[in-house]
Amino acid sequence: MPRLTEYKDMAPRAKAVVDGIAQARGIDPAAINNVWKALARDPAVMEQFAAEMKAAFAPGTLDPLTKELIYLAVSITNQCEYCIASHGAMARARGMTGEMHAEFMAVVLAAQKGNKIAMGYRVPVDAAFEEK
Amino acid sequence: MPRLTEYKDMAPRAKAVVDGIAQARGIDPAAINNVWKALARDPAVMEQFAAEMKAAFAPGTLDPLTKELIYLAVSITNQCEYCIASHGAMARARGMTGEMHAEFMAVVLAAQKGNKIAMGYRVPVDAAFEEK
Amino acid sequence: MPRLTEYKDMAPRAKAVVDGIAQARGIDPAAINNVWKALARDPAVMEQFAAEMKAAFAPGTLDPLTKELIYLAVSITNQCEYCIASHGAMARARGMTGEMHAEFMAVVLAAQKGNKIAMGYRVPVDAAFEEK
Amino acid sequence: MPRLTEYKDMAPRAKAVVDGIAQARGIDPAAINNVWKALARDPAVMEQFAAEMKAAFAPGTLDPLTKELIYLAVSITNQCEYCIASHGAMARARGMTGEMHAEFMAVVLAAQKGNKIAMGYRVPVDAAFEEK
Amino acid sequence: MPRLTEYKDMAPRAKAVVDGIAQARGIDPAAINNVWKALARDPAVMEQFAAEMKAAFAPGTLDPLTKELIYLAVSITNQCEYCIASHGAMARARGMTGEMHAEFMAVVLAAQKGNKIAMGYRVPVDAAFEEK
Amino acid sequence: MPRLTEYKDMAPRAKAVVDGIAQARGIDPAAINNVWKALARDPAVMEQFAAEMKAAFAPGTLDPLTKELIYLAVSITNQCEYCIASHGAMARARGMTGEMHAEFMAVVLAAQKGNKIAMGYRVPVDAAFEEK
Repeated sequence: MPRLTEYKDMAPRAKAVVDGIAQARGIDPAAINNVWKALARDPAVMEQFAAEMKAAFAPGTLDPLTKELIYLAVSITNQCEYCIASHGAMARARGMTGEMHAEFMAVVLAAQKGNKIAMGYRVPVDAAFEEK
Repeated sequence: MPRLTEYKDMAPRAKAVVDGIAQARGIDPAAINNVWKALARDPAVMEQFAAEMKAAFAPGTLDPLTKELIYLAVSITNQCEYCIASHGAMARARGMTGEMHAEFMAVVLAAQKGNKIAMGYRVPVDAAFEEK
Repeated sequence: MPRLTEYKDMAPRAKAVVDGIAQARGIDPAAINNVWKALARDPAVMEQFAAEMKAAFAPGTLDPLTKELIYLAVSITNQCEYCIASHGAMARARGMTGEMHAEFMAVVLAAQKGNKIAMGYRVPVDAAFEEK
Repeated sequence: MPRLTEYKDMAPRAKAVVDGIAQARGIDPAAINNVWKALARDPAVMEQFAAEMKAAFAPGTLDPLTKELIYLAVSITNQCEYCIASHGAMARARGMTGEMHAEFMAVVLAAQKGNKIAMGYRVPVDAAFEEK
Repeated sequence: MPRLTEYKDMAPRAKAVVDGIAQARGIDPAAINNVWKALARDPAVMEQFAAEMKAAFAPGTLDPLTKELIYLAVSITNQCEYCIASHGAMARARGMTGEMHAEFMAVVLAAQKGNKIAMGYRVPVDAAFEEK
Repeated sequence: MPRLTEYKDMAPRAKAVVDGIAQARGIDPAAINNVWKALARDPAVMEQFAAEMKAAFAPGTLDPLTKELIYLAVSITNQCEYCIASHGAMARARGMTGEMHAEFMAVVLAAQKGNKIAMGYRVPVDAAFEEK
């Protein structure tokens, strides 16, 4: 089996997931992203991930761009090139300017450093940080 | 040398860093967080990190809470307990409600899954994600 | 020195490692996988890894497919594309069906989430989990 | 809010999740594991994780012990102490003997080494590993 | 915006960073490495990283090759191909022989194993390791 | 079985490993570090790790302190507290001064940043870094 399954070759269960995503985004199902073409071989995993993504990005108290930046921060930390490329594109589509990107990267990089400092120096958690 | 150096026992160079942070936060230098008490043994690293944090959290186009959420997302991904505790407290102080935390965690967890799916299925980057 | 050394160009010590692997697998030494062509420059590392792999996959109480799935789970978690490709092929050769792959990925992804939940919420270990 | 919420203090939506797990395991809801006491503050995340775990461990083509070993392999790789403790206990409850644990660790450690070798020597994927 | 910005197309602030690096290395600014061409879009991040690298590699008590090996060890552990390639080349330029590389890899791989053993067996820190 | 097995309670095969280490270090076997008390339950894993550590730290072209710093760099990157504590103590015993530690941390932290920059900006490897 090739790594990617085109929409026209997907099983009905996989097609149904793609149809739902394509409709929500207003795109042609044949133009669906590679991640869904790859997941098409495991429809149960595909359905679960589609549902989880839909719930995570459903309208709520955090705005869509903030959610994309959170997703992107995780992806850079995990060093996932596909996700950096895809959610970088999503963040730009949702209004991330060049200036925002620079500020975002500054926070991401400071956090990486803070994380390794806390571990490298074996810093114990301050009692003041605990919730009452 | 013990792991943490109290403010009163710090070298002048380390004290100066703590003074700057304490003044900016309006707190007593003796109440500084453990991470600075741990860094006090390496003043050059301490100065560099203090400057980087100050620059990363300087007023800009992203609001302070968004920056805290980005920092927290990196810290959870890197599994740094100290940073999760400290920046979790900071995020709450800057207005993160329980509802926001639930949404934030949903995005962080969906991103973890997306990252591992992209790697586990070896998904190639779509041409459409590239910047022109 | 190029990154990969073909069998015919390897030093005797590296050739001996490849000969052992090729014999065990019933293949032509010239058809050895890239990982061994890359390790050929550091024969001591190569010998050590070959011995460790042989011991880890020696017949025992866990069956060969279970061992491949464990290896693959680590490789996806570490995001190592080479190892995902090579041990994915090995798992299929040892009987992993499409259905098993879907179940395997479901467990791997649930574990990723469980790991990040435990860290993100800073969950203390239950006393009941400790061995007596 | 304290980090852990006892069953008696949980909101109805969180209690319902715990009731389902307690019933499936035949335990008293008050004896539920800490991870669920921690998740109780974010019921939507809690419900999603409970459903995902239930689906991942539903009867299928892989036996329950194999699934526990896969979960444990991910948890050791991610260095999540809570998950190592909890799923180590689960694996023992599902029949993991001392001998199996030793074999399991040998594969996990060989995989860690294989992963870092593949990255450290920048080994390209062999064409033979690709699916047809 | 393309991912890489050539020197001739950089903004003055980015050009100044490249000029400083090119001068220190005695190279043509147009031949600067890709990492700087990528960072050119975020001059503040670029300046900060250039300053940090300069300070980290300034003459001190650790010799330049030792510093390159430390950098390379982090990069292999983090599985960053770009950094493995670039600092591998730097280490060779600063005198890393094939024999040193083999010894280096042996320590890196032993450390990976030691790290996962310590976590997998949940080993508590010995009191003897603490500083007085 | 408790997590740690004291020397007097170890099986002969585990005792033999500890005897070898204790002799090489000139210490009482009963004073062996916790990592060996934890590994005692899996003698095959224990023997393999002891042999690998001995080989990695055997006299060679890299001096003992450099090897400790490489080991420590990996351990901080992997965030293994046990290994940071134990090899931090070893590095101090082998001559790491406070000044060296500060320089070491500066390189480790710069590398973390460089790694995440390379991934976050998706920097392609320069042709000049490749070996001929």
